[in-house]
Amino acid sequence: MKAERFPVSGRRIILRAKPNGLPKAEDFACETAAVSEPGTGQILVRVDWLSIDGFMAGRLKDQANYAPGVGIGQTMQAFGVGRVVLSGTEHFTVGDYVYGPFGMCEWALMEASPEVKKLDPSLGPPRLHLGMLGISGWTAYVGLFNVGVVRPGETVLVSAAAGGVGAVAGQLAQIGGARAVGIVGSEEKVALATSKFGYAAAISRHDSDFSNRLSAACPNGIDVYFDNTGGAIYDNILDRMNIHGRIVVCGRMANAALADSRQDIGPRDHNDILVKRLRKQGFIVTDYSSDFDRITRTLAALRAEGRLVLPEDIAEGLPNAPGALVRLLRGENLGKQLVRIGTET
Amino acid sequence: MKAERFPVSGRRIILRAKPNGLPKAEDFACETAAVSEPGTGQILVRVDWLSIDGFMAGRLKDQANYAPGVGIGQTMQAFGVGRVVLSGTEHFTVGDYVYGPFGMCEWALMEASPEVKKLDPSLGPPRLHLGMLGISGWTAYVGLFNVGVVRPGETVLVSAAAGGVGAVAGQLAQIGGARAVGIVGSEEKVALATSKFGYAAAISRHDSDFSNRLSAACPNGIDVYFDNTGGAIYDNILDRMNIHGRIVVCGRMANAALADSRQDIGPRDHNDILVKRLRKQGFIVTDYSSDFDRITRTLAALRAEGRLVLPEDIAEGLPNAPGALVRLLRGENLGKQLVRIGTET
Repeated sequence: MKAERFPVSGRRIILRAKPNGLPKAEDFACETAAVSEPGTGQILVRVDWLSIDGFMAGRLKDQANYAPGVGIGQTMQAFGVGRVVLSGTEHFTVGDYVYGPFGMCEWALMEASPEVKKLDPSLGPPRLHLGMLGISGWTAYVGLFNVGVVRPGETVLVSAAAGGVGAVAGQLAQIGGARAVGIVGSEEKVALATSKFGYAAAISRHDSDFSNRLSAACPNGIDVYFDNTGGAIYDNILDRMNIHGRIVVCGRMANAALADSRQDIGPRDHNDILVKRLRKQGFIVTDYSSDFDRITRTLAALRAEGRLVLPEDIAEGLPNAPGALVRLLRGENLGKQLVRIGTET
Repeated sequence: MKAERFPVSGRRIILRAKPNGLPKAEDFACETAAVSEPGTGQILVRVDWLSIDGFMAGRLKDQANYAPGVGIGQTMQAFGVGRVVLSGTEHFTVGDYVYGPFGMCEWALMEASPEVKKLDPSLGPPRLHLGMLGISGWTAYVGLFNVGVVRPGETVLVSAAAGGVGAVAGQLAQIGGARAVGIVGSEEKVALATSKFGYAAAISRHDSDFSNRLSAACPNGIDVYFDNTGGAIYDNILDRMNIHGRIVVCGRMANAALADSRQDIGPRDHNDILVKRLRKQGFIVTDYSSDFDRITRTLAALRAEGRLVLPEDIAEGLPNAPGALVRLLRGENLGKQLVRIGTET
């Protein structure tokens, strides 16, 4: 075990109070804590970049979720990339670039579990493994092709189409021979979705003529709805789903401010599900982790060919990580939301 | 073309008024109309039995459906079995037993389309082809195994468990190695479901302790919910679905009284669908018609072995067909609801 530049303390973001509605930056605090030397089977990671993702809102709630939440005083959860600076296991070497659930912190002491993965630096800058070549890219790929089973010639509607997952989903749907239509949160994002992210058409959900524009944008109806938001917009979309359509439930950004999702009230969808023989299916991308290496190589090849882009919205420094989460949950980011912690690209 | 006993007129049930809420017998009228001789490619069928099914409620509404509705003055739709009495096509011979969408009538003039099928009298009395060996049996089989993908050891919850589809579903789930739990509409049906239809447990939806009884009946949670009703009971069931569970949307009896299913309001289910990675899928059994012959033989073999039963609730005579539909939609029938039109067993 070789020490590179062992710290004695580092900063981390802890949860100070359970959010009442949408999280605010004041719900978090930045504190300095001692960092221990890794024991046997552990590594110490210098975190360079953090990924800010919609799932984080769910980790702040008391409602049951697919993964444990964050308690008061605990480090806020986040995926990150960084370098191994101390290693207590033969599986990692000092200097390895790694990806994992490091949390919002500068230094992460981790067990060498399968959740921590070595990165291949030849595929591009490490931070890409948080976006296009990581959770955003995997989620878009798995949602479209494993769950939605998108086929050439079909119409795919994507909500939050200018976010990290949505931006990749538009391009991948087009690469897969489908026609992508996006729902976004502003006119600025309409332009971005159609000019950069492969969308044949995009509509702002705040458009006063939303319903008619959606019909015009989907003249052949909707075969796959890739839903990153949930909420009331769903009722509008059900009407336009085609027979044997698929509804991919990927995110629930529209409910981020609700303490309990049962407060999201609307018409039950059983009639449309039955009449149109729809398949509505939720997924958690980590259930497909055995496929991640293959998907990463596919996405990296598309990037190398110039067929896949993902703009990054970068917040500077760990203390700005809570603010970046607030921005994301308000839909104020453009493309993949990242936080730069270290000095690495 | 050989005439057997050609009629000059016959009775039929027409829709007199669109129901306001649940259909009433007074919404229909029994009238006598002339019956034409079949032209080329047509057959005349003497209808012996009619099947009364939950889907009929949807055919009386103005809301879009997967099949055209019934207009004022038109013959009420229904599947039936009967005998060919005049044939204008080489595909049918006078005396053939046939199954088809004959409508509520004594004599049906039909095109010799694929919707009209010859029955194999060696499999049992023709009326079985409306129940266990027909639409009820096919629906239970397809819903459980093609859509729900039920596996041995799983828990299957079935609503309307003492109806035609539900009674077969409980027995087939058990035959498939699963544990079946039923939701029914009365204590009388609880006894029937557990004593006759293969259910390990059954609960009346009117039970004041429904929620606790449901938990007690499903100690390992629910893997497949075979939903024949929709409605508010769904919210209760979502809580108990297991990860990777399947929700089979087969019927919507709970909405039979609603003019528009959008009046069925409740929590949107996206959070549970996502967190538990559920698959919710609707189906129309006729989409699987290429598989019907195989399924019919399977069901007939199970019946011959004494492993499959389906009690019949029989209304006598065509004029009582509307009343039989009202009974079904009120949940007052026990087992398969039929109407005897002719004298055949």
